[in-house]
Amino acid sequence: MRRLFWALALWAVCAQAQSNPAAQAARQWREQHERAIVDEFVGLLSIPNIAADKDNIQRNAQTIAQMMQKRGVTSKLLALPGVNPVVFGEIKTRGATRTVVFYAHYDGQPLDPKEWRTPPFTPTLRDRRLEDDGQVIALPAAGKAFNPEWRIYARGAADDKAPIEAMMAALDAIRAAGLKMKSNIKFVFEGEEEAGSPNFEKILEANKATVMGDVWLSCDGPVHQTRQQSLTFGARGISVVEITLYGPRGELHSGHYGNWAPNPAMELAQLLASMKEASGRVLVDHFYDGILSLSETEKRAVAESPDVDASLMRDFWLGSTENAPKKLAELITLPSLNIRGMASSRVGLQASNVIPATATATIDMRLVPGMDPKVTADRLIEHIRKQGYFVVDMDPSAEVRQSHPKVAKVTQTQGEPPFRISMDLPIAQEVIRTVESARGPTVKIPNSGGTGPDAAGQVLHIPGIGVPIGNHDNNQHSFNENLRIQNLWDGIELMAALLTM
Amino acid sequence: MRRLFWALALWAVCAQAQSNPAAQAARQWREQHERAIVDEFVGLLSIPNIAADKDNIQRNAQTIAQMMQKRGVTSKLLALPGVNPVVFGEIKTRGATRTVVFYAHYDGQPLDPKEWRTPPFTPTLRDRRLEDDGQVIALPAAGKAFNPEWRIYARGAADDKAPIEAMMAALDAIRAAGLKMKSNIKFVFEGEEEAGSPNFEKILEANKATVMGDVWLSCDGPVHQTRQQSLTFGARGISVVEITLYGPRGELHSGHYGNWAPNPAMELAQLLASMKEASGRVLVDHFYDGILSLSETEKRAVAESPDVDASLMRDFWLGSTENAPKKLAELITLPSLNIRGMASSRVGLQASNVIPATATATIDMRLVPGMDPKVTADRLIEHIRKQGYFVVDMDPSAEVRQSHPKVAKVTQTQGEPPFRISMDLPIAQEVIRTVESARGPTVKIPNSGGTGPDAAGQVLHIPGIGVPIGNHDNNQHSFNENLRIQNLWDGIELMAALLTM
Repeated sequence: MRRLFWALALWAVCAQAQSNPAAQAARQWREQHERAIVDEFVGLLSIPNIAADKDNIQRNAQTIAQMMQKRGVTSKLLALPGVNPVVFGEIKTRGATRTVVFYAHYDGQPLDPKEWRTPPFTPTLRDRRLEDDGQVIALPAAGKAFNPEWRIYARGAADDKAPIEAMMAALDAIRAAGLKMKSNIKFVFEGEEEAGSPNFEKILEANKATVMGDVWLSCDGPVHQTRQQSLTFGARGISVVEITLYGPRGELHSGHYGNWAPNPAMELAQLLASMKEASGRVLVDHFYDGILSLSETEKRAVAESPDVDASLMRDFWLGSTENAPKKLAELITLPSLNIRGMASSRVGLQASNVIPATATATIDMRLVPGMDPKVTADRLIEHIRKQGYFVVDMDPSAEVRQSHPKVAKVTQTQGEPPFRISMDLPIAQEVIRTVESARGPTVKIPNSGGTGPDAAGQVLHIPGIGVPIGNHDNNQHSFNENLRIQNLWDGIELMAALLTM
Repeated sequence: MRRLFWALALWAVCAQAQSNPAAQAARQWREQHERAIVDEFVGLLSIPNIAADKDNIQRNAQTIAQMMQKRGVTSKLLALPGVNPVVFGEIKTRGATRTVVFYAHYDGQPLDPKEWRTPPFTPTLRDRRLEDDGQVIALPAAGKAFNPEWRIYARGAADDKAPIEAMMAALDAIRAAGLKMKSNIKFVFEGEEEAGSPNFEKILEANKATVMGDVWLSCDGPVHQTRQQSLTFGARGISVVEITLYGPRGELHSGHYGNWAPNPAMELAQLLASMKEASGRVLVDHFYDGILSLSETEKRAVAESPDVDASLMRDFWLGSTENAPKKLAELITLPSLNIRGMASSRVGLQASNVIPATATATIDMRLVPGMDPKVTADRLIEHIRKQGYFVVDMDPSAEVRQSHPKVAKVTQTQGEPPFRISMDLPIAQEVIRTVESARGPTVKIPNSGGTGPDAAGQVLHIPGIGVPIGNHDNNQHSFNENLRIQNLWDGIELMAALLTM
């Protein structure tokens, strides 16, 4: 019964994909050029792309610029001294009144080659996942089809060179089919995203007119765990706070002083416990104040999101979840208060018979629209004060510690605002329609649970939408990163549709 | 005014010391033989005494046996294969109906010589504490007096060779003054106390008749922080428990899963907070059940104990204490629940944006008479169950974790029973009177806050009383261990009084 349901669902997806002429053209082109597409992709993946490796970063940038020029795309490098260049490309379309900007990044996560089964910059084809005992196989001869479940192993295969290759193949398909574009197109490919994008906003500011458009499509990250195409319309923000509480000046013997000297680990436990109900609700006053509720469209998107909770619980060995019965899809549209880590003296074989001298916890709070990183940190600090603590932001002196019953050092170490664009914006609706015409029903995520910079919103004040193509099980940021061949094929059809919207 | 009070108090102490003839004789003898006494002590301290150093341990044991034989004490080594010998000595007193056993240990804490200012087995005299810029000085010529504030630096100087030297000098003084003993005397000097006494009870069992007596005087540890002579009538027991809680199988991204995946650090905080009120009262059901209350004598002893709380708070930089306004002296006669250490993922610069996979806390509970280590651990486990946890004692499988909302691994890693002998016992009252006749008013501690084995009670079923002589600021168990000269002089008078009781 369940199998029948999925077969019908898959048929529905495929049937709908046929409705977009550019996606249809892309499929035909791809079926005839699989080996050539993969050859070009393998060539790009063979160039090491760690952000700190300046020479190879330049080789990547020039190779990508040439890949665009080959397709008649005007291209150039947007550079600042000492900064990895942004590869920029542009297609001007006669009569177009709208500009669509495609974002991707060509640098990859730092790595340790010893952890990789095959060298990270020797792209290698396997007949299935390594975790499922996938074996290395040769590329099929030109004209022979790839099995869509094969995978290419290399750093950057999924994150984030795949969209670049998909756009290039899509351009070929569009030209070959003689399809016309309706919008101006811009390509913005960053070279230090995995180093934390330290200069990206600066480059955008310096080239504002060049990179400006009407919508920003961020082609990065994986699609939904169900392999269904997903679209993301924002990201949670973050506020990271570290709290240290103080017991005796140095560790004391727990026999001589236990029951008398205050124990900072117990006080930290009591303080942290005061912040959250067992159910998961945050107890910090005003924590939820001002939060924008989801629109009807966003609520519907969340309600229609596939239910993956039970399967994730199995994967993660969980016997319960926080805030049940609410589902993960809804919960990431709400803020969280999470303990990243906690430390006081030692445990296990290193534990000794002491009253610890200090206890520390690092907390991250994920924020949703209506919340501000600094204001949220301040509310947490006010909560700590209400529990009787004298709050300082530097190591307290002996005098400060002696003159207050309880002292907490609290520092905010990171803050990023949340963002969420409205799915009801005409351009958002058009992107959704276009993507669904190529890829069938999508999972529409009002905001990702994680945090990401909103360069489009912050610098250009235009809406940004996440349009990923990688498989969710791509080992992103880890060793043995890989791309499932079908995801590349799907990505070409997706990009063809978006390039002609 | 305060100075006058102390001067009067000191006069009272000195005046009272005169009342014990053996203590008087000891003082006269000591004043005439200071250099000879220190020379013998220095000789003993020059023999390295780490329990693992078998050759030197033998040299120590033989030297001490010879020191006794020189004074006409019958002595022998009580040995078991592979075990550091107990040095035993005996003085039979004609017509005596009572046997007093003197316990000390001749081994010292392991050490790292690099941490010591002068070599640990090259006994060195300083003109005051190292912390007060004490300088190395030569021993005064024979016949010249030692300044009582000078200190001898060496491993074992205070812990615990000083009582051995004090007993030997006291024996000399008693013989020289022609004083008679009233009791049989036994000496039991252990050789692996600082290694945790792994074989001591076995040796006592194997030599029960040899070591049997009517009272066991444990001459170990420091006197009260006020430098007043103290007596200890028991020790708290201990029950150590380690708790681990589980979140996701591996650390998860706090953005993608925060607010959905359970956070074991927060759950541990909530669990620990449920165990204790902010005031310090333990909330585990039945935790305080069956505790023996203090006798009137014990209550008076606690009430008369010098108030050191304010001065300790200054030393330890504390702005408050647990269970205030109760004082430390009373609080160590009550049980404690203390977090030794707590760990979950990482904090500080190592913190990352994760939901931790596990969280662990090690807890020690100090027990007082009426409590049992195993029963107390079981009550804590029952408390954890009442908070909704499925409790296991080994790493739980995926299946166990998936089939219970909350799982805790709890293991008991150490347990020692408490003990406290009655101060009202005639022998206890006689020891108190004897000590006070030599040393003036004492601080009588119903039980120490720390835990110690009760060999006398467990194996011999006789009362044990702690009679220390070392200074409290002796750097016991650390580097630069030292003995204040006045404490050695006082110890000789104390031992002379006890040897003739």
